[in-house]
Amino acid sequence: MSSYNESPEEISQATQGYVMQQTMLRIKDPAASLPFYQDVLGMKLLGKYDFPAMQFTLYFLGYEQALPEGDDKAKNDWVFRRPALIELTHNWGSEKDVNFAGYHNGNEDPRGFGHIGISVPDVYAASERFAKYDVEFVKKPDDGSMKGLAFIKDPDGYWIEILSAEGITEIILSQ
Amino acid sequence: MSSYNESPEEISQATQGYVMQQTMLRIKDPAASLPFYQDVLGMKLLGKYDFPAMQFTLYFLGYEQALPEGDDKAKNDWVFRRPALIELTHNWGSEKDVNFAGYHNGNEDPRGFGHIGISVPDVYAASERFAKYDVEFVKKPDDGSMKGLAFIKDPDGYWIEILSAEGITEIILSQ
Repeated sequence: MSSYNESPEEISQATQGYVMQQTMLRIKDPAASLPFYQDVLGMKLLGKYDFPAMQFTLYFLGYEQALPEGDDKAKNDWVFRRPALIELTHNWGSEKDVNFAGYHNGNEDPRGFGHIGISVPDVYAASERFAKYDVEFVKKPDDGSMKGLAFIKDPDGYWIEILSAEGITEIILSQ
Repeated sequence: MSSYNESPEEISQATQGYVMQQTMLRIKDPAASLPFYQDVLGMKLLGKYDFPAMQFTLYFLGYEQALPEGDDKAKNDWVFRRPALIELTHNWGSEKDVNFAGYHNGNEDPRGFGHIGISVPDVYAASERFAKYDVEFVKKPDDGSMKGLAFIKDPDGYWIEILSAEGITEIILSQ
């Protein structure tokens, strides 16, 4: 532990303008992940960045209405100030590598990262629609003791919690 | 792949009000993680929820100014509509379990989750301050070919990218 010490006011000032901008997940195949995040979850693709020398592409998605007008510089500058984006990293070739074992979702050993979570107006309506897209469920809203809360899997098997503010508040206040 | 098909308008309507609300990371010890996210990164603790029957506690943190006034129900309802929160899950006892091997950060095998990323006004100034807190760096801003971009570790070893919109835009446009 550091002995460095700041007052709450100093901390606020030093971290002013900080934005929780991204959560990065590696994906096997953008042809599977992009339709999932765009069509099933309704996010918008805000940026696609190729790094040919390092053979990867980054996709940034989020719940923004649309990109602003402007040149590439202005658009990128805007993207990297947005909060709550998903960054999908595609290392070229994994999508056609028959020996690629897939990515680890963090919920079996070794554990770590758990999930991302999306707050929706109605978990039951959302889940019914996800089922039409053949989305895999870890937990349907009425499974287990926590009613009105669902977990689904993205194409790589990462868990996504589907919660509503009302539903989760009810669960929390009943503990 | 599902044969279910919606127009862009139908997708927008069906996913209206969706919020990318949380990124969940398991933590060994809140006595280490809370000061890190609050004091070093400047996030606010917006909610702490104990689940005694299941022996875990959830901590929600984010870059919000303050909780609104109101009763517990109103406050929780507000928290679970906020975008871009970090959810730290503490399974009771890990902090004093000498056999606990620690959580997996996803960047060594088996890989998956990569990092969260915080957009800051000045990566160099932020990094100088983090160094005073004895934060561990994966990459200092001037290491490697991508200048002006840093990676630090949280107390469990999860990677946190420290980026600025200007700096990352420069990196992207130079590829």
